[in-house]
Amino acid sequence: MRILVTGAAGFIGSALLKSLIGDPAVPEIVAVDLAERPAWAAAGRVRWLCGGVDDCAVMDAIFRDEFDLVFHLSSVPGALAEKDPRLGRRVNLDASLDLLERLAATSRCPRVVYASSIAVYSPSSGPVSSRTPPRPAITYGAHKRMVEIALADHTRRGEMTGISVRLPGVVARPGPATGFGSAFMSELLHALAAGEPYCCPVSPGATMWWLSIVAAVKNLMHAGVIAHCGTIQLPALHLTVEDVVEAFAEVGGTVRTSLVQYRPDERIEATFGRFPELDVADERALGFTDDGSVAKLIRNALTQANEIAG
Amino acid sequence: MRILVTGAAGFIGSALLKSLIGDPAVPEIVAVDLAERPAWAAAGRVRWLCGGVDDCAVMDAIFRDEFDLVFHLSSVPGALAEKDPRLGRRVNLDASLDLLERLAATSRCPRVVYASSIAVYSPSSGPVSSRTPPRPAITYGAHKRMVEIALADHTRRGEMTGISVRLPGVVARPGPATGFGSAFMSELLHALAAGEPYCCPVSPGATMWWLSIVAAVKNLMHAGVIAHCGTIQLPALHLTVEDVVEAFAEVGGTVRTSLVQYRPDERIEATFGRFPELDVADERALGFTDDGSVAKLIRNALTQANEIAG
Repeated sequence: MRILVTGAAGFIGSALLKSLIGDPAVPEIVAVDLAERPAWAAAGRVRWLCGGVDDCAVMDAIFRDEFDLVFHLSSVPGALAEKDPRLGRRVNLDASLDLLERLAATSRCPRVVYASSIAVYSPSSGPVSSRTPPRPAITYGAHKRMVEIALADHTRRGEMTGISVRLPGVVARPGPATGFGSAFMSELLHALAAGEPYCCPVSPGATMWWLSIVAAVKNLMHAGVIAHCGTIQLPALHLTVEDVVEAFAEVGGTVRTSLVQYRPDERIEATFGRFPELDVADERALGFTDDGSVAKLIRNALTQANEIAG
Repeated sequence: MRILVTGAAGFIGSALLKSLIGDPAVPEIVAVDLAERPAWAAAGRVRWLCGGVDDCAVMDAIFRDEFDLVFHLSSVPGALAEKDPRLGRRVNLDASLDLLERLAATSRCPRVVYASSIAVYSPSSGPVSSRTPPRPAITYGAHKRMVEIALADHTRRGEMTGISVRLPGVVARPGPATGFGSAFMSELLHALAAGEPYCCPVSPGATMWWLSIVAAVKNLMHAGVIAHCGTIQLPALHLTVEDVVEAFAEVGGTVRTSLVQYRPDERIEATFGRFPELDVADERALGFTDDGSVAKLIRNALTQANEIAG
């Protein structure tokens, strides 16, 4: 059993990799990221490759091994890809297609979990499900959708068994999350946790899909072990900013909600603040889950990444 | 006004190019194909580039000019792409994306007509329309769908005004059409025209979408001049093999239907012989048309390509 993780030092990648390292049943891991090997990934079972998946030499180094399970998470974030679509294409599309092509040429018919995104949808009013016709409104989403199609085609060809997992904005990203339009969701949670004032760029009634890093990793791991192939929409809690702020007061034990001021930016509100209901009955039947409650979402979101493995 | 045509020596490309050459209002054409310049394309207004769009040098030569209108027709046919998906990717996907990226970098915001295909759909029972969720059952169709998405994204970015035109199998292709699973439709028409015996690989009741080369070119030209952007499904006649054979007897003046024998191949019948109704009301409203009747389809299909310009 050998596992490949791309984007292994990223927000989701590092949490996932810690989970894998924490599992004694996982004998060998190849981890790829632009970042150097972090101290917590010093385990001998981890071969760390520092570089981009769009670099041929890195790709060659990856494929010194064959893999049974692949988590393909690396990507250029949406706002950056929108500004630099050539970079977006090279990393998010071409390198992903190269990776799938290389995997298809191996003898193992690997399980491939592809981190897709809700960026494949356009803003809509009705409930959104994996059957909603994708109509990407940003280049990042267009590339994600194209890779989903390529993965489905490799699966049809019998070269791998692929599942594309559409992730919502996952909370709470550490630090300033440049390039992520939904960064305010994480910033809000961190500010509330720290008891610091926060100026929210969407209104109290702005509605988003909320999923914690703990639940995201749990779902990705689940995607790796089930047999189902295709494209799935991860469950997430459908909550307003106010829902989260109020629940936070209960969880935190202190009423800090007055620290949150609202100065809605119409562009951010329109793109990230009007999410409709999710219809994820199929995904729940497959065993995918959201955080269960606002209180659990907040606890899970503020769990330090290094605690996830434990 | 400068027009680019890729795949200009192909079955559809050559018919389209003849139409363009025949139009004195078209001042300049750049035509690209793997084949050498044909004698009929000797017009001084035509710059002919012999080579593949997947060749950087050819791409550089194309972009010595800027374009107002682009017909992107070149592709590796479906059966060949299925056997050699890397070749399919290089020509049908990567080269198409490169072409769009180069067009996006020009200053003219060109009109781009992309020859997509009904290969984006999976076999289905209900009426098919451009809103039917694409689910390609061959790699060729997966790549076509991916380019549709890329073209829509470039259009959204304001870099071009793109229209993806989903073509059915167009009749009647000359000679042995290797690589096209639907080749039997053209072979049948040629055999009937020549009064030769034909062994049909689908049953008399097999139902397909029929569109002649004359109507295909007319629709592509129309796509070039209207303002509508997005993905459209071309109208086509929904006919059984028997419908065509019987109508042929009337058109041809002789009853040659007895020359047709049926030896259905289950694989071909399943893939190419069970097409459902088309729902193309939107496309008809935009001015796209089928051949109008079986009799006209047959006449248009058997029009020699070199007569189309006339």
